[in-house]
Amino acid sequence: MEIKIMKNILDRNQNKANEVRTLLASKKIVMVNIISSPGAGKTTLLERTCEKLGTKFKLGVIEGDITTDRDAQRLVKYDIPIVVINTEGGCHLDSNSISKVLDSFDLDNLDILFVENVGNLICPSQFDLGETFKLAIVSTTEGDDKPAKYPMLFRESRAVILNKIDLMPYTNFNYKSFRDDLTKINATVPLMEVSLTRGDGLDKWYEWITEQIISPDNLH
Amino acid sequence: MEIKIMKNILDRNQNKANEVRTLLASKKIVMVNIISSPGAGKTTLLERTCEKLGTKFKLGVIEGDITTDRDAQRLVKYDIPIVVINTEGGCHLDSNSISKVLDSFDLDNLDILFVENVGNLICPSQFDLGETFKLAIVSTTEGDDKPAKYPMLFRESRAVILNKIDLMPYTNFNYKSFRDDLTKINATVPLMEVSLTRGDGLDKWYEWITEQIISPDNLH
Repeated sequence: MEIKIMKNILDRNQNKANEVRTLLASKKIVMVNIISSPGAGKTTLLERTCEKLGTKFKLGVIEGDITTDRDAQRLVKYDIPIVVINTEGGCHLDSNSISKVLDSFDLDNLDILFVENVGNLICPSQFDLGETFKLAIVSTTEGDDKPAKYPMLFRESRAVILNKIDLMPYTNFNYKSFRDDLTKINATVPLMEVSLTRGDGLDKWYEWITEQIISPDNLH
Repeated sequence: MEIKIMKNILDRNQNKANEVRTLLASKKIVMVNIISSPGAGKTTLLERTCEKLGTKFKLGVIEGDITTDRDAQRLVKYDIPIVVINTEGGCHLDSNSISKVLDSFDLDNLDILFVENVGNLICPSQFDLGETFKLAIVSTTEGDDKPAKYPMLFRESRAVILNKIDLMPYTNFNYKSFRDDLTKINATVPLMEVSLTRGDGLDKWYEWITEQIISPDNLH
């Protein structure tokens, strides 16, 4: 391929990501970089999480989108701070754009900042935003071959959510093949199987993300 | 955003795309650049099309993939020439990579060349490969908001396939909202509603793609 991301771009991104990470750690804020295909369930995960944990913890959201604020509009009914970054065609967020919008939040009143990256399994995996960890969402309707085809995301994520398990019976999704591929790429990664629209399996997610928020390991 | 595709990269891509287009026209080959999210149905569309039209027309396939040849493996049972381009992390194909692999085909024995781009709604829309036209696939399980959120692809495609209509009853896909958004972006684009696994609606696709293959308008 002719087009590559040049090392100087990645270096610059990394330096800014390190700054973001240091700032967030000093404020004891966990930042989650959520990555998935278009329509896999990122915004719905945020809706469910705001409903369940919005009064227990101080949440904030950065919405990355090519051109609209549609995802953010779905979240305005929850009383949390939201900032939209429109990438104007760009296929991922970068640490510089995150760094610029952090000022818009009251960082002394925030426990966890969710970043909904642009819907894309590829480029977002390559750019450190300064997050505490990455979270991958994949849905059964996309097929069982996503870990094998996009290994970098699944290697780098601290947890994987398998969404739309209620639709699995209507698809040719092979659970064993999915699980085997994922284990080969990241043997110890927690896998949470959920239906974000119906609510199946969400207790495990609320428990896991709560642990991440309160764990002192995430705050240095 | 800090990262932009620089004009010299796009210009270089465009020049090579023009060369590819001229070469294919001289050989009377239609090239289709298929773009969708991961798991929306690109490879399944090729399977169905090989089954139905593989003896009637001379087909060829270029498979763009990050790292594996899994999609190509699904097509080897059809007796057609296939070339895999692994982008090694790159999020889209470019015209230079297409130009390099055209030599691997017998261009005097080809009616139509399908290019399965990398699964991504964003970057592939921005790079002309020298194709005759782009084809967008979107599936009901991704949600109804894809045209509004990724307008460039839907503006530039000659046709749109809406796949997984059999799963629509199990989702919150709002057909009217999808149709209205699509019409705003591209009022005249043909929309084909199909279930690629079950076969619903495929006759319209076979008819439409046959027209594209035999139309003299596509061959200059």
